[in-house]
Amino acid sequence: MAEDHPFASLAGTWRGRGKGEYPTIAEFAYNEEITITPVPGRPVAFWRSATRDAATGEPKHGESGYLRSTAQGIELVIAHTFGVVEATAGTFDGGALTLSSTGLLGTASAKQIDQVDRHYEFDGDGLHYTIAMAAVGVQLTHHLAADLRRE
Amino acid sequence: MAEDHPFASLAGTWRGRGKGEYPTIAEFAYNEEITITPVPGRPVAFWRSATRDAATGEPKHGESGYLRSTAQGIELVIAHTFGVVEATAGTFDGGALTLSSTGLLGTASAKQIDQVDRHYEFDGDGLHYTIAMAAVGVQLTHHLAADLRRE
Repeated sequence: MAEDHPFASLAGTWRGRGKGEYPTIAEFAYNEEITITPVPGRPVAFWRSATRDAATGEPKHGESGYLRSTAQGIELVIAHTFGVVEATAGTFDGGALTLSSTGLLGTASAKQIDQVDRHYEFDGDGLHYTIAMAAVGVQLTHHLAADLRRE
Repeated sequence: MAEDHPFASLAGTWRGRGKGEYPTIAEFAYNEEITITPVPGRPVAFWRSATRDAATGEPKHGESGYLRSTAQGIELVIAHTFGVVEATAGTFDGGALTLSSTGLLGTASAKQIDQVDRHYEFDGDGLHYTIAMAAVGVQLTHHLAADLRRE
């Protein structure tokens, strides 16, 4: 892949551990694997995350989609295992990737999610992120924090 | 993976060739790889497709997301490389997988897509599908047809 790909610096598999909390649920710990794969010749990268319960190893949340660098800015379009799709817009300066949802759409069986704010800090082979969410009647509230390392 | 997973029969990597057409563009031929990976213990399967120009090998369309079996029926939630996310609902009888979009949402840089109808016919290690689309002011019209084989 050309070094000038806008997401070349993010390429790889990132593994680590996170903690989730939300007013409507009990705190939980999870292991996570994020894979980012730039598409050669296109300002797009495939993005996939899969988490597992830290205690039992049971599959929990999954999301997959595409990070895009466009004339209008950075975008992430993504589908969630829980039946929601999300379009986001934001910025990427080579280290900090900040994205706010511009739209969320659920299937008939999905819970209502109103807003997702993502903040990723890439630092060499380290990644720290926090995610806040407004959902099921709760205002925008801190939801997830995790630390991962690139393999 | 347990044999009783609702999408066990679809698991694998499917490769083949398709043809695209639409009133607003020239006909095109593409190679495609579809990967379907059931999530153990969850009625969900990871779904990813990547196509390449049949002549040049250049990456073209990509989509990724999750197929879900729910009390409300079969659902597919999916993100497209061109900046659109799609929620769908439909049916799966073990052979025919039929899905119609229930909602489509684009980023600021994406083209307008109004409707996507998908019909997949799985037959052993063979897969034939057709996709119709309403977009950029055109009514629901045949767009893609492809034949793939499971490896």
